[in-house]
Amino acid sequence: MSAIPAEFVRKTARLSEESTRPFPGSKKIYVQGSRPDIQVPMREISQSDTGGIFGVEKNPPIPVYDTSGPYTDPNVEIDLLRGLPDVRHIWIAERDDTEELPGPTSVYGLERATDATLAPLRFEHIRKPRRAKPGHCVSQMHYAKRGVITPEMEYVAIRENQRLDELRQDPAYEKLLRQHPGENFGANIPDQVTPEFVRSEIAAGRAIIPANINHPEVEPMIIGRNFLVKINGNLGNSAVTSSIEDEVEKMVWGIRWGSDTIMDLSTGKNIHETREWILRNSPVPIGTVPVYQALEKVDGKAEDLTWEIVKDTLIEQAEQGVDYFTIHAGLLLRHVPMTANRLTGIVSRGGSIMAKWCLAHHKENFLYTHFEEICEIMKAYDVGFSLGDGLRPGSLADANDAAQFGELEALGELTKIAWEHDVQVMIEGPGHVPMQMIKENMDKELEDCYDAPFYTLGPLITDTAPGYDHITSGIGAAQIGWYGCAMLCYVTPKEHLGLPNKHDVREGIITYRIAAHGADLAKGLPGAQLRDNAMSKARFEFRWEDQFNLGLDPERAREYHDETMPAESAKVAHFCSMCGPHFCAMKISQEVRDYAEVHGIGDMKSAVEIGLKEKAEQFKEQGSEIYKET
Amino acid sequence: MSAIPAEFVRKTARLSEESTRPFPGSKKIYVQGSRPDIQVPMREISQSDTGGIFGVEKNPPIPVYDTSGPYTDPNVEIDLLRGLPDVRHIWIAERDDTEELPGPTSVYGLERATDATLAPLRFEHIRKPRRAKPGHCVSQMHYAKRGVITPEMEYVAIRENQRLDELRQDPAYEKLLRQHPGENFGANIPDQVTPEFVRSEIAAGRAIIPANINHPEVEPMIIGRNFLVKINGNLGNSAVTSSIEDEVEKMVWGIRWGSDTIMDLSTGKNIHETREWILRNSPVPIGTVPVYQALEKVDGKAEDLTWEIVKDTLIEQAEQGVDYFTIHAGLLLRHVPMTANRLTGIVSRGGSIMAKWCLAHHKENFLYTHFEEICEIMKAYDVGFSLGDGLRPGSLADANDAAQFGELEALGELTKIAWEHDVQVMIEGPGHVPMQMIKENMDKELEDCYDAPFYTLGPLITDTAPGYDHITSGIGAAQIGWYGCAMLCYVTPKEHLGLPNKHDVREGIITYRIAAHGADLAKGLPGAQLRDNAMSKARFEFRWEDQFNLGLDPERAREYHDETMPAESAKVAHFCSMCGPHFCAMKISQEVRDYAEVHGIGDMKSAVEIGLKEKAEQFKEQGSEIYKET
Repeated sequence: MSAIPAEFVRKTARLSEESTRPFPGSKKIYVQGSRPDIQVPMREISQSDTGGIFGVEKNPPIPVYDTSGPYTDPNVEIDLLRGLPDVRHIWIAERDDTEELPGPTSVYGLERATDATLAPLRFEHIRKPRRAKPGHCVSQMHYAKRGVITPEMEYVAIRENQRLDELRQDPAYEKLLRQHPGENFGANIPDQVTPEFVRSEIAAGRAIIPANINHPEVEPMIIGRNFLVKINGNLGNSAVTSSIEDEVEKMVWGIRWGSDTIMDLSTGKNIHETREWILRNSPVPIGTVPVYQALEKVDGKAEDLTWEIVKDTLIEQAEQGVDYFTIHAGLLLRHVPMTANRLTGIVSRGGSIMAKWCLAHHKENFLYTHFEEICEIMKAYDVGFSLGDGLRPGSLADANDAAQFGELEALGELTKIAWEHDVQVMIEGPGHVPMQMIKENMDKELEDCYDAPFYTLGPLITDTAPGYDHITSGIGAAQIGWYGCAMLCYVTPKEHLGLPNKHDVREGIITYRIAAHGADLAKGLPGAQLRDNAMSKARFEFRWEDQFNLGLDPERAREYHDETMPAESAKVAHFCSMCGPHFCAMKISQEVRDYAEVHGIGDMKSAVEIGLKEKAEQFKEQGSEIYKET
Repeated sequence: MSAIPAEFVRKTARLSEESTRPFPGSKKIYVQGSRPDIQVPMREISQSDTGGIFGVEKNPPIPVYDTSGPYTDPNVEIDLLRGLPDVRHIWIAERDDTEELPGPTSVYGLERATDATLAPLRFEHIRKPRRAKPGHCVSQMHYAKRGVITPEMEYVAIRENQRLDELRQDPAYEKLLRQHPGENFGANIPDQVTPEFVRSEIAAGRAIIPANINHPEVEPMIIGRNFLVKINGNLGNSAVTSSIEDEVEKMVWGIRWGSDTIMDLSTGKNIHETREWILRNSPVPIGTVPVYQALEKVDGKAEDLTWEIVKDTLIEQAEQGVDYFTIHAGLLLRHVPMTANRLTGIVSRGGSIMAKWCLAHHKENFLYTHFEEICEIMKAYDVGFSLGDGLRPGSLADANDAAQFGELEALGELTKIAWEHDVQVMIEGPGHVPMQMIKENMDKELEDCYDAPFYTLGPLITDTAPGYDHITSGIGAAQIGWYGCAMLCYVTPKEHLGLPNKHDVREGIITYRIAAHGADLAKGLPGAQLRDNAMSKARFEFRWEDQFNLGLDPERAREYHDETMPAESAKVAHFCSMCGPHFCAMKISQEVRDYAEVHGIGDMKSAVEIGLKEKAEQFKEQGSEIYKET
């Protein structure tokens, strides 16, 4: 299929209702920072009051991290043709270290911009690109190292905190904020995230804010071991499928369910134009693998790639606003033969492209030999590195082998170089790794790459479950997130089999939200257990609507509930389908609780000692059928 | 809904085609033991030959553990009305320590057997129950302690080995059997499972073979930390739904996807008759929570339960053939008030029943006070204990608290008592536990309960994802399985929301097969990686049919593949939908491999040293488009 006619894109470009409807029982809130134009979005889930046998109590609203951007705010009018409002323009301009260019400076970008036949496909309101003034570096790391706290840093500090400072002052949250101590393997998790903490983490290279100056629409977010674990979702057209409109819809769908960043892995037609539409409408950072597009430019012949073509592609994409680039610069000529005896060779697409190039030319990887030039480009736009793991294992058999770890060491070397240029860096990781070998990946990454954030694909803990690789990998992702991985690249149920549809994307993202949140809980991030506690209390009190609304996927929860008990009245029923109305464990628990309260049994010891016996008959009469069906 | 009319059951009682069709590319094999009537079933997945650019190679068949019983053997004629063939009758009879009873000895069993109105519902070919001769104990533990290797023990030894001894002798498997060393936290995993090893593990209480003498249809299996991790699936009618036929179908469906045991948690009508149908048709051990049925006998009023009613229920069920009983005997009066300050109180159904009883009577739990009598009953039929965790946490907030661990200690005490009677024991565990607190559960169980097998429900690592609790719990299950948990009780996507349908059951079981297999791999069980390696090789070589067939869910894998590339020809295509036909990472890997082979580059060092450079141009001409589409 080719792209659908552009006229169609233009006239009908709108999102599906299911991608944009507000979440039930929720409202969008904005927390203002130190200046009026720092407005940090969150979602607040309201709760109903406790009632019935559980006593009367108000339940406070629960703020949750919100990746969905303006799309779920009913007060914002969305116009895909114009793109999103510009959050960061003033911040960037104020720094006075960038200049507006007359137009694209890449050969390809200029070519596309001036090709009249593309007009119908082209996003209409393309801004002129900005670039650092000569001799300047405009990366967040650069500012951080100089002690400057940017609005972006303050923004992410507020965003990470999720109003925890306020909630701690409010007695209504006291019980809900209780949580277990974490185990964090040497991470340095603050009790409260301050802008200064954000700055110091970025300066140290332990975290990045991917935010290209040409992507002012981005709502800043941070990726680092001492912050909430993030997830990435992929999209992209291919030679086989999809239109521009489809890709924008996929992006909005992905962030709705919780993608913190989106990678555009397009390899089909009109990659440049598709990317423009995505960027102009994306509130989350967009990552790419530029060599994919470069390969298209040489008709898929890896050996025909040149540094010049890739360089031009980097500039092209940087000027559109891509926030991070996967660059496979650590795959060196000497690593290639290390893969010959592997069970599954090289499975990374970017990795195999570079391996083929190296082998065909018997030259060192040009991304490695030109690495400093790449840094020079990236620092002028603040594009972050996602240093690619071209030799990640494609099977358990190949996990943690010499090829993989050889490349990882090279990535560490490159990290140092990038940091000398103040370019932000994260490191990509596997892949397929059995559970007992996952921690070694994390430990080695921290050591070899000097605490740069780790960004892994899964890992899948078994190769035996095609159709369920969101789960095989979600298990590994939860573990590596706990051990310190900063971002988890999602895997869908279609992995290894086909291209994901919307259902698969949702399934993959929620699985990874579970993994990331499980990791946050295990690390003991402050406030991480709030939503769990609110859910558990709602569950105990049979507040069904609240349970749905507090869930990671409220629509699925409601739908599943209604399959068994469709009646509206069942949603206020004080029982569930597991036990039915006549017997209920929760109800009995409440009886235990009521009984303990009435009889002043505050602690466990007194219970038996004060002699429940004399009250037993009384309880039997009064208490054992307290419950009345409503 | 009431049960469907029995005439209907009788006339139409048949299973759906989807529950019984043989797995694609597979055949059922039987490995004979030391005597002709030890025929251990396995499934053997055939593989096609390697071809094309990957060279010519035969790929050997892969044997896999098979829980599906005769249902997937096209040579066995299934007749639900007659039940399954009797695997163990001779073994039991030969031991000459049991006697056939004239009929049920429980009051209730007799009542049901003689109630003419139940005739249409009743399974037609009910055997007379057997019981140990007076003064005898017929448990596998009893024989094991006396040094006797029963046919059941030999059977499970063969079953656990999965022909590994033969495969090790066959060069075709050499590469496929390679695997990474495990980390097993002090387990004692043998290089090969011998009948004597099985015996010694059972004698030590570290493993159990749940196999009631009245369930001769069972294909013996073993649950223990030094064996393959097992999973349990639940079924059961309720006051709201299902017929007998439905429950039998659910059982067959569950074992098809990999349930090693099934728990029948029925609470609806005709529980006794439903159970008979299930047992007579089940090749896997059946567990129950007898107090559920006892509660039905007192119309749902927990405080009206008596030891006599429960005792009669135990005998009733033991004489039908239930293989293990969940008994909440460790929940003591003193524990009940410990739950008053919990966020979610008591969430175990059995636990809350007993708590209510204790509180109403202010007496100690009668399952505890009558524990030795329970042992006397169970040893006469070889029913195993699954000592229930009535106080398991129902939320992260309540994990690992005093109530939970207090009960666990009591279970340890009871374990000792059961073992004095030679009754087999496993210990139930949580529940809802954040990742960093899972290992403490395992460690404490091993310590408090003297290495008795642990059997946990999940645990769920977050409370925030209703609709996805197979995943929240699968993550926890994989971890606790790795740490040493012997059996994992599945959770479906409907957990906390409603009753699972067939889709949910399949989803839950496959998730748990992934968790269990992931644990086997991490522990380093010999041969565990065979199926993964075969899959990875098939993946590398684009043997699509083999990939589907080797998967845990071949039907799902095929269906997902076909959504993107439906053509039959795509299944022999040497590319996948991810990259399309024009570029393929696998293909390039094979080129690297071919190149390395042609040029004699055996190890990584020589590759660069011998100077690929001179060959580079040649490769460019010859190698870079080796691939031809077929």
